[in-house]
Amino acid sequence: MTGVPIAPRPLTDLAARHGGVLRNGASGVVRRLVPIDRAAAGDLAPLLSLRYVPDAVGAIGRGAVLLANEELAARDEIANLPAWVHPHAAWTLAELLEVGDAPEDEPVIGEGCRIGPGAVILPRVTIGARVTIGAGAVIGAPGFGFALGRDGSMREIPQLGGVIIEDDVHIGPLCTIACGTLGPTIIRRGAKLDAQVHIGHNCDIGASSIIAAQSGIAGSVTVGRGVMMGGQVGVADHLRIGDGARIAAKSGVIGDIAAGATVAGYPAVERHRWLRGLAELYRIASNRAPTSARAPESLTPPVPSARPTTVPGTWRGATIPPPPSVPPGVRPEAIIRRSEPPSEGEA
Amino acid sequence: MTGVPIAPRPLTDLAARHGGVLRNGASGVVRRLVPIDRAAAGDLAPLLSLRYVPDAVGAIGRGAVLLANEELAARDEIANLPAWVHPHAAWTLAELLEVGDAPEDEPVIGEGCRIGPGAVILPRVTIGARVTIGAGAVIGAPGFGFALGRDGSMREIPQLGGVIIEDDVHIGPLCTIACGTLGPTIIRRGAKLDAQVHIGHNCDIGASSIIAAQSGIAGSVTVGRGVMMGGQVGVADHLRIGDGARIAAKSGVIGDIAAGATVAGYPAVERHRWLRGLAELYRIASNRAPTSARAPESLTPPVPSARPTTVPGTWRGATIPPPPSVPPGVRPEAIIRRSEPPSEGEA
Amino acid sequence: MTGVPIAPRPLTDLAARHGGVLRNGASGVVRRLVPIDRAAAGDLAPLLSLRYVPDAVGAIGRGAVLLANEELAARDEIANLPAWVHPHAAWTLAELLEVGDAPEDEPVIGEGCRIGPGAVILPRVTIGARVTIGAGAVIGAPGFGFALGRDGSMREIPQLGGVIIEDDVHIGPLCTIACGTLGPTIIRRGAKLDAQVHIGHNCDIGASSIIAAQSGIAGSVTVGRGVMMGGQVGVADHLRIGDGARIAAKSGVIGDIAAGATVAGYPAVERHRWLRGLAELYRIASNRAPTSARAPESLTPPVPSARPTTVPGTWRGATIPPPPSVPPGVRPEAIIRRSEPPSEGEA
Repeated sequence: MTGVPIAPRPLTDLAARHGGVLRNGASGVVRRLVPIDRAAAGDLAPLLSLRYVPDAVGAIGRGAVLLANEELAARDEIANLPAWVHPHAAWTLAELLEVGDAPEDEPVIGEGCRIGPGAVILPRVTIGARVTIGAGAVIGAPGFGFALGRDGSMREIPQLGGVIIEDDVHIGPLCTIACGTLGPTIIRRGAKLDAQVHIGHNCDIGASSIIAAQSGIAGSVTVGRGVMMGGQVGVADHLRIGDGARIAAKSGVIGDIAAGATVAGYPAVERHRWLRGLAELYRIASNRAPTSARAPESLTPPVPSARPTTVPGTWRGATIPPPPSVPPGVRPEAIIRRSEPPSEGEA
Repeated sequence: MTGVPIAPRPLTDLAARHGGVLRNGASGVVRRLVPIDRAAAGDLAPLLSLRYVPDAVGAIGRGAVLLANEELAARDEIANLPAWVHPHAAWTLAELLEVGDAPEDEPVIGEGCRIGPGAVILPRVTIGARVTIGAGAVIGAPGFGFALGRDGSMREIPQLGGVIIEDDVHIGPLCTIACGTLGPTIIRRGAKLDAQVHIGHNCDIGASSIIAAQSGIAGSVTVGRGVMMGGQVGVADHLRIGDGARIAAKSGVIGDIAAGATVAGYPAVERHRWLRGLAELYRIASNRAPTSARAPESLTPPVPSARPTTVPGTWRGATIPPPPSVPPGVRPEAIIRRSEPPSEGEA
Repeated sequence: MTGVPIAPRPLTDLAARHGGVLRNGASGVVRRLVPIDRAAAGDLAPLLSLRYVPDAVGAIGRGAVLLANEELAARDEIANLPAWVHPHAAWTLAELLEVGDAPEDEPVIGEGCRIGPGAVILPRVTIGARVTIGAGAVIGAPGFGFALGRDGSMREIPQLGGVIIEDDVHIGPLCTIACGTLGPTIIRRGAKLDAQVHIGHNCDIGASSIIAAQSGIAGSVTVGRGVMMGGQVGVADHLRIGDGARIAAKSGVIGDIAAGATVAGYPAVERHRWLRGLAELYRIASNRAPTSARAPESLTPPVPSARPTTVPGTWRGATIPPPPSVPPGVRPEAIIRRSEPPSEGEA
């Protein structure tokens, strides 16, 4: 269930008690706190991030009331909408949630699950069938959310939305899946997470997506179906990763990724662009190396440089982009190849 | 013990039951599943990665039978070898392992070990003498291995090879050491792993190597003796890191590293090359900064730029490469200096 | 209490027993091992890092005795100071600490704390009031410190300094906070650490600082007040991060950061410089792309490139630097925005 019930109260009462102003005729009785993309009549929908400004009109249309941060509320798209506008809306949200009525339901675990030793499954977590939870994983600990108050003080925002893990999901050892705020963090059917992966609060990880070890997804990210993510990837908050996207290991994603795209680097860009940029960089650096004779700029070789590298620490595909006959350098493919059994590796 | 025993069966039976074709006269009775670099008579050796194609001839020479993925089997080096060729060889391997006969032996722990509270030592793990296992570490959880089937469905590949940790190893708190597939993941004598390190399945970490916190090594990587790895390093799967190599913190290694090399960056290259590339990058960017008068390209200063930087957030060695009198910027050395006691740091 | 008491002994005895030489009239009775920045009469202060050479004169002035590594002791600033000089001073320190007298005090936990299930609080840890310790976090495990001996052998340096966590701190699930060596690792009042953060031994994390998930701080780092650090940041050992500094996600910090600075990249530099460097890189690469007509260098457009990108995987702010009207690309701000409740994210 998305949304946190509160004791029903007229908006005028709430504003009188918690501060802020009612603008453009905002009114009604509030019964629940609900994310803005699903809020309807009787719901109060926080608007605290630029990202969700486009959702505001829809929420109003469904009869919801906005609790908007003052700064955002000044924007043209919002300025004429009915809203409860508050200079510290997140702080107010925290106050409301603290008296919210989200029962601390015991976790529910489906049939055929394997829960590793030391794994911690907290209240408000629902786990489907045939799910693997690795040893020591922590599912449903509060998301990392703090509100700033008037005087710069910080206050924890209660995280009451829980976690839903669908059927056939694999969660590796020592992963952390944070509890959502108003609605659940979701890991969809068949998704596979390697060890030490972190999923922030309110994320929605698509079906059959694969995330390699030590990757971290910040809060409120939506990952599509069949996405493949290498190890140690980072994804900034509130982004959308399209279906079937491939994200090379160690990428830092700071913007939306289109469906089917293959990206690499930090900030993550289309993989070919990243490789070309690197190739240029090392080409230029080689040309200017003070100890080597330097070709005039107009005579520098095209990408990729054909000159043999003499560095002691070479790597497969030292010339960028790597020749087609070897595994390509960046290899989001690696997360597929990881699913292969080893043909060696023991000594 | 490397390899997983199965009920003895003629190869013809296996192919009839699991699909695929026998090519170039492949035959024999299969009694074990064994990694390709050690497989001999009576063994079935999976060939699922390009990386191990060179091992195939040796395995055949020792009397082993190959289970080769169709795609790989088309390669010239393989095309004429006897092999059981299957379009979904990994899936078949998973099927075989599910009825394999690898007893779930209780873990064995040597004398003088210190096992931290909350550490999880799973079956098929063997730990030598005087080993430290940090609190909450997870040793021997199944490696992250999934096979794709005909219809795109995924299936977990059983991980039955266990883990061997030799004498005098140090494993930090909250590390994950994954269980090998057919043979053990190995951490050799005297290796030291800091907190939150992840070691993938089938890795072989060399004696006295040091790996700083939050580094992750993907599956089937061989790390030599005395290797030093900074924090948050990532190493892609199936690579070989030579003896005594030094890998700067946060490097992303996507190719083999020669013995004794010092590398940095992502993709990791020889450290000097990386530094030179960065120096060029910032030099060019400075020259083009729209708010500053710009020198003609032919007059730009050589590397390193001698111009004072005016940025508010400087870092030691802001001019790249750093002058010889300060600790070099990237400092894989840091992981040595970490072993020094603090001379300060308390307030 | 900073410092580890030992059985009182004249320095001459210690040198006779552990090796090394007394130089420039070093003498006195040693009663404690204390970090160099606070050592006074009766204290032995290890000098093992270049970073603390400036502290040596002060320590001598307060009446302390230095235990200096031979290599460092050769430096001009040190050469004339009284000191116990040893070729393997860290090894000697380890020997002394092994017979030190640091009682293994049970952890102390203040009022109103919430300790998550599976969290491990080890001896010598002191926790203030209203502190949250996430599930599975490990507080006070020995820091990662090894000394090299004469023959290349390694020895663990006892870590006896403990951990102090002040009031109102939040430690996320599966964090590791390492125990200090001679004095405590400190997390100051109101600091907030997200999940899977690693804090090395002897660090001092300033009040109200915020560190996002999966960041790692190496040993002996001092972080100021109100610092904001994105996710997956790495900070090398022995550095100082000034008050109010902002460090973008995934940055690799290898030098001191000035108060109030905003840095990004690896190595981390002032954020604008990093963005400008990236812009140049991709601009150059685009110009040289072999499949596109190429403008002469003298006609290349200024930064940022105004040409539309055609890559399939775009990211918000694909043109670098991002236009001012969208959240800037790197967004150390994200760690503030994380403290906002989600306005969406559930499907």
